[in-house]
Amino acid sequence: MRLAPDIAIANRLADAAGEVLRRHFRQRLEVEAKADCSPVTVADREAEAAMRAILEADRPQDGIVGEEYGVSGAGAKRFWVLDPIDGTRAFIAGRATFGTLIALVEQGLPVIGVIDQPIAGERWVGQLGEWPGTRLNGVPVRVRDCPGLARAHLATTHPAAFSAAGHAAFHRVARAARDTLLGGDCHNYGLLAAGHLDLVIEEGLKLHDWAALVPVVLGAGGVMTDWRGEPLRVGSSGAVIAAGDRRVHAEVLATLAL
Amino acid sequence: MRLAPDIAIANRLADAAGEVLRRHFRQRLEVEAKADCSPVTVADREAEAAMRAILEADRPQDGIVGEEYGVSGAGAKRFWVLDPIDGTRAFIAGRATFGTLIALVEQGLPVIGVIDQPIAGERWVGQLGEWPGTRLNGVPVRVRDCPGLARAHLATTHPAAFSAAGHAAFHRVARAARDTLLGGDCHNYGLLAAGHLDLVIEEGLKLHDWAALVPVVLGAGGVMTDWRGEPLRVGSSGAVIAAGDRRVHAEVLATLAL
Repeated sequence: MRLAPDIAIANRLADAAGEVLRRHFRQRLEVEAKADCSPVTVADREAEAAMRAILEADRPQDGIVGEEYGVSGAGAKRFWVLDPIDGTRAFIAGRATFGTLIALVEQGLPVIGVIDQPIAGERWVGQLGEWPGTRLNGVPVRVRDCPGLARAHLATTHPAAFSAAGHAAFHRVARAARDTLLGGDCHNYGLLAAGHLDLVIEEGLKLHDWAALVPVVLGAGGVMTDWRGEPLRVGSSGAVIAAGDRRVHAEVLATLAL
Repeated sequence: MRLAPDIAIANRLADAAGEVLRRHFRQRLEVEAKADCSPVTVADREAEAAMRAILEADRPQDGIVGEEYGVSGAGAKRFWVLDPIDGTRAFIAGRATFGTLIALVEQGLPVIGVIDQPIAGERWVGQLGEWPGTRLNGVPVRVRDCPGLARAHLATTHPAAFSAAGHAAFHRVARAARDTLLGGDCHNYGLLAAGHLDLVIEEGLKLHDWAALVPVVLGAGGVMTDWRGEPLRVGSSGAVIAAGDRRVHAEVLATLAL
């Protein structure tokens, strides 16, 4: 209940970004190369600008950390984390698995998270401290049970982007899992929260990549930590495990540490 | 024009399969393990059965090669190739990049191909010998130009499933390409035909995996061959290259052969 006004804002942010992204989807965009070589489009920038305008008007005291335009209001007690397009490669290829990610962070912990897929019309909204914590298009969702890693359907976006050591550790897990689905970006975490996947593992994520995912996964009854089993908070390493069932999570931690 | 009655049949097959698949999508299906370890669901079987019933009634002289129920009418002059769910992993995870694949083969060559994504409502229909050859939901589509591999957006579903030699050769190409999008199954070839991707490379495909893709890619002005540059026909190795621009295709052939 405490977070209801902020959830309303988060929904407005997602609406504004989605309007921009639907307009640019499957148009032939100029793709630029950023310093880190990820493709960036005008859609990315416009969507973040649209979200920032809402926050500057309605939450002037809050800070903002955005993928495209960086930090404003540094030192604010609470801040919003914005990733207008998570999965830019999918977006520019016309695949509707990218998403807009929106998180509200208080005391270093994300307390609201939104994963919005504006083409398919799928929006996951998660919050901490309420039950049910996560809804997909307004309907409460829940992770599914899975007795162990050997039965787990695993997903990851792009393991070749892992560090060498991370890649080797990931492959120990992937070999022990039932199967591995590649690609998918933030959408995989939404599918896990809705009980269609058992496990998502990634490495090298930045704050704007993972912050929104945590309330969605936890609010659906799942587990999400770093690769050492620590809760994710501002400053975490960006190596993440999301699992629907804590038996799977425990096995993954043991397998990564081998 | 000659193929118009068969295209009408192909559309009816896709309609019938889509009706089954929409009913089962994101339900919690029992997933069985097949001999080759790919997950198979009741949806797969029902969708193929629905398509076979139409062909048996309306094309009794034609043969059928289906992923689930095998060959009927062996020795027929023309035959239909059916893959009710290409991308079963995506399907069971609730990701709408799987597709139903339908091809009509005459004299060893696929002359009609359908890629149908029944959740997003996207259907590519390609045919040889007409221009425009490929339509997406009825609208003609065309590949895009790309001057060379360094500018090419590459996609592949799961390179870890390649042979060891194939994996090494693929990675030479991937390192030279602009970027690589993973996952996506047959949907990647539709995106290439519509001008959103430049290159798709896979290995180890079976006839039912690739037959429908060829008319879609060729009909949109693209190139699709095996890894030695030979046209794909019944009996091909299952190592495929689809490119929107033949300059990219030529560079890929040279890079694979290094």
